Amino acid sequence: MNELTSKIDAAMGRIKAELVLKDAFIINVFTQTVEKKDIAINDGIIVGMGKYEGNHEINCNGFFVAPGFIDSHVHIESSMVTPEIFSDLVIKKGVTTIIADPHEIANVLGEKGIEFMLQNSKKGDADIFFMLPSCVPAVDFEDNGAVLEADNLERFIEDPQVLGLGEVMDVNAVTSGNKKMIRKILMVNKYRKSLDGHCPKINDKELNAYLCANIRTDHECTNYEEALEKVKNGMYVMLREGSAARDLKKLLPAVNDKNYSRFLFCTDDRHIEDLVDEGSIDNCIRTAIDEGLDAIKAYTIASFNAANCYNLWDRGAISAGMKADLVIFEDIKKLKIKNVIKNGKVYKNNHMFKDIFAKPSVNVDHIKEDLFKIKAKGKFVNVIKVQPGGLVTKKEKRQVKINEGLVECVESKEEVVNKIAVIERHKNSGKHSVGFIEGLGLKKAAIAQTIAHDSHNIIVLGDNDKDMEIAVNNIISNNGGIVFVSEGKLLEYLKLPIGGLMTSENPSFVVDKIIKLNSLAVKFGIKKEVDPFITLGFMALPVIPEIKITSRGLFDYSKFSFIDLFTDI
Amino acid sequence: MNELTSKIDAAMGRIKAELVLKDAFIINVFTQTVEKKDIAINDGIIVGMGKYEGNHEINCNGFFVAPGFIDSHVHIESSMVTPEIFSDLVIKKGVTTIIADPHEIANVLGEKGIEFMLQNSKKGDADIFFMLPSCVPAVDFEDNGAVLEADNLERFIEDPQVLGLGEVMDVNAVTSGNKKMIRKILMVNKYRKSLDGHCPKINDKELNAYLCANIRTDHECTNYEEALEKVKNGMYVMLREGSAARDLKKLLPAVNDKNYSRFLFCTDDRHIEDLVDEGSIDNCIRTAIDEGLDAIKAYTIASFNAANCYNLWDRGAISAGMKADLVIFEDIKKLKIKNVIKNGKVYKNNHMFKDIFAKPSVNVDHIKEDLFKIKAKGKFVNVIKVQPGGLVTKKEKRQVKINEGLVECVESKEEVVNKIAVIERHKNSGKHSVGFIEGLGLKKAAIAQTIAHDSHNIIVLGDNDKDMEIAVNNIISNNGGIVFVSEGKLLEYLKLPIGGLMTSENPSFVVDKIIKLNSLAVKFGIKKEVDPFITLGFMALPVIPEIKITSRGLFDYSKFSFIDLFTDI
Repeated sequence: MNELTSKIDAAMGRIKAELVLKDAFIINVFTQTVEKKDIAINDGIIVGMGKYEGNHEINCNGFFVAPGFIDSHVHIESSMVTPEIFSDLVIKKGVTTIIADPHEIANVLGEKGIEFMLQNSKKGDADIFFMLPSCVPAVDFEDNGAVLEADNLERFIEDPQVLGLGEVMDVNAVTSGNKKMIRKILMVNKYRKSLDGHCPKINDKELNAYLCANIRTDHECTNYEEALEKVKNGMYVMLREGSAARDLKKLLPAVNDKNYSRFLFCTDDRHIEDLVDEGSIDNCIRTAIDEGLDAIKAYTIASFNAANCYNLWDRGAISAGMKADLVIFEDIKKLKIKNVIKNGKVYKNNHMFKDIFAKPSVNVDHIKEDLFKIKAKGKFVNVIKVQPGGLVTKKEKRQVKINEGLVECVESKEEVVNKIAVIERHKNSGKHSVGFIEGLGLKKAAIAQTIAHDSHNIIVLGDNDKDMEIAVNNIISNNGGIVFVSEGKLLEYLKLPIGGLMTSENPSFVVDKIIKLNSLAVKFGIKKEVDPFITLGFMALPVIPEIKITSRGLFDYSKFSFIDLFTDI
Repeated sequence: MNELTSKIDAAMGRIKAELVLKDAFIINVFTQTVEKKDIAINDGIIVGMGKYEGNHEINCNGFFVAPGFIDSHVHIESSMVTPEIFSDLVIKKGVTTIIADPHEIANVLGEKGIEFMLQNSKKGDADIFFMLPSCVPAVDFEDNGAVLEADNLERFIEDPQVLGLGEVMDVNAVTSGNKKMIRKILMVNKYRKSLDGHCPKINDKELNAYLCANIRTDHECTNYEEALEKVKNGMYVMLREGSAARDLKKLLPAVNDKNYSRFLFCTDDRHIEDLVDEGSIDNCIRTAIDEGLDAIKAYTIASFNAANCYNLWDRGAISAGMKADLVIFEDIKKLKIKNVIKNGKVYKNNHMFKDIFAKPSVNVDHIKEDLFKIKAKGKFVNVIKVQPGGLVTKKEKRQVKINEGLVECVESKEEVVNKIAVIERHKNSGKHSVGFIEGLGLKKAAIAQTIAHDSHNIIVLGDNDKDMEIAVNNIISNNGGIVFVSEGKLLEYLKLPIGGLMTSENPSFVVDKIIKLNSLAVKFGIKKEVDPFITLGFMALPVIPEIKITSRGLFDYSKFSFIDLFTDI
């Protein structure tokens, strides 16, 4: 007897279903109503809605059941755990399908990084689909680990786990008809797969060009009017609630009775402690309802809309024939999750957290503190000034104190100015640069890490060269991660052996390490409202204003070019 | 320069678009609004919405523009013209995409019939997609021209013109797990293509079984409550407005603000004179609006919903990147079509109506009038009584007048009782049967035709055996079609050389012939309210109540078996 025949037998009531959720209040995305019914499940599929008996039954009287949630755009790497571990984390939050863009690991390991994500994601229970990273490297003057052109991506495109091309951040490459970008787009269009956008403040004509390329989603609206305009023009707009970027409340006024089917939820970049504490898409649903969105619409946006957008016809609704990915919960507004059904079974985490063997990704020789010494070429330097939020910076001029031809320190009445350096770590090229950063205030200590968007070179912060040397050398020995050093001693570290970005450790272990690292940071002078590790992660990203540092030097966003550390008054 | 680059150039305004529709009131299916914009078109694709200049411009000030309409389910054969000619007929009505089920021609010519439809449809300008006929023959005791199993269908399934499996009429085969049907379903599911349903009055558990097979559309709801129930369970419901079956007004109360995205329009079976006079999907839109449906919803149902249902992501909305299939019209409620844009060009019919060489499909030797003589085996016979509408019949008992051991005629106080016969015509098997039919009232004449659902054998009606002989022999000589004979003379005929179902003649010629045939029918006794040709077309269809005649004899629907012509009192 084939599977379909046994499902039909169960649907017809000729055999008992394996599992029946009895008397559930079901979120019906087709009619935008709630109705009380049994849900019968066999072989991981919903086989019947109505009155059914099962070999195993769960009394759902008084409980709601929604289709499993879908995170429509996420960089798993931002959680610092592998897809397998991430899967466990988010299923508990009701997220049964994930559409991930392995942009970070691809910047380090290229095709091998994508292969790792595809393979490792099969070990988790969530369905993890991938959008192939479209912009590796993000800009062509970056020292990252790999270059991915259309040919490199095409070998993945027919994989059923691959849904299309990830966020096309380089809007200009599209609108100017850049040949390499056009080849990527044509390749994906040939296979009739999806293309994700990334187009803050795009203008009308650019948006039309973008749509001609079949790029039909965006998660970077800066205000609700922009979201409305994009929806009007035929895009799906993602309401993002990440850890750093939290747009949901700002964009929600764009959603109305007539257009709500064109919105999705996503988390984009979400830190592990937020996933554990606040949740994932469940947090989007709660926040949206709390802000006044009709609850059924919120559950529809979280499931059905994303399934439609990405052509995932086997999920996103509670109906016979659909995957039995279901969230059982109390309180339609507060979404208190009781159980998650994944592939027809009550989800229970039974992962063993064992080490994954990872090929070393930190390819650089140990350094000496001399690397951080700066010859005084003038009296003034350009300094990176950290702004609230931690992504955008300001360019400031500061006077330096010179001692024996070297810069001893930067003078600032306001705050402590630290040294910051970026060291290329993919090809042992020896490239590095040193600059200054104001607004973090680290004292008698150094922090180094291999998370530095998007090229993920080693970035190090400190108030003395010796601690900086020790921090960097520990990062190299650890094969990536985060370290905290003070007065010559290694005080705390988190190893991220997979590409210097991820670990396969237990999430609670990771969260514990993050908490310890953050409390050390506060103890050694970092302001409470700043997360120095996340801030450092964005200080090497040249595509965000106003001044950043890469392994090639200081980068001025407004000039879109590198500038000298030293400057005139 | 590749096509995408030139589209991007036009979108960015760097080059002039080929065609611009200026200042149109655009039906926006994403936001359910109307907005005034220009639509710029290049290479058959919309490249821009906003303000554009074109090499050619059409002033649309005061006119509306809607996405090209989609007929979500139609048997082209019912129009009696080829797909190429059908294309021309319906594009003029705004229908730019057709989803056809070649069920009729497949019953005559099998795989060759499907091949013909696929090939011929490429000659028209409309995009004609196909659902592979799932039930050929409709029942296993039929003398049709072909049997199509999963293996016969699989060779077509990867054709981009093929969207899936056509209406699965045999609900029982699904719910009982019939092996041949399950194989067809599994084959289509394997390729992730769509499955159409056909399930009037299906019960809850059967519907669940049907949905387990991924059958997700229905066009046979008997009332609006049934439509609502199907939508609630996750089906798309088609609001059908055919020539015989007109369900739209009856089902429209099911459509509301929350569920309208789950409805489609279809015509199913539409005669050529109705297509010419009333229209196609344009008629559905007008009728729906006239019945009170919000106009924008009507245009959305006619385009966007069908595109979503069948995963036709390149159409169904007016947006950059979408196909430039557009309907320009006056009066949002009355839909007075001014122009249709197909593939970016103003549609102008430039077809040459030339004969298509068709292999003879009427494989039967000429007959003698003796074939129609009936030996008297009793005093009473079962008679087919025609009901208003012409599909459903009633079984009546009537006394016969006997002469020299043969039935001379049937006595009926009410009406003239005609002879009706069906002659197998695919395999020259000699199978035939003769019976009686009341309610048509043909006098001194005979009508024969090769349209007789679903097996399309020769069906002949008459009040005298000689005229019936001449009619049948003319049909055979003509290689199919319709003939009208009176008192030994052939008065009128329409040749349908393609499978005995279709012609490649000019529609106006066909309509003219139909009008002449119908007026002859009235002249020779047929009631004005009855279309004898359409009625005859359904008298051999055993799956509709209550009594029908096939080449194997009289069929009683309630017993679901053949019965004797003669009966006790």
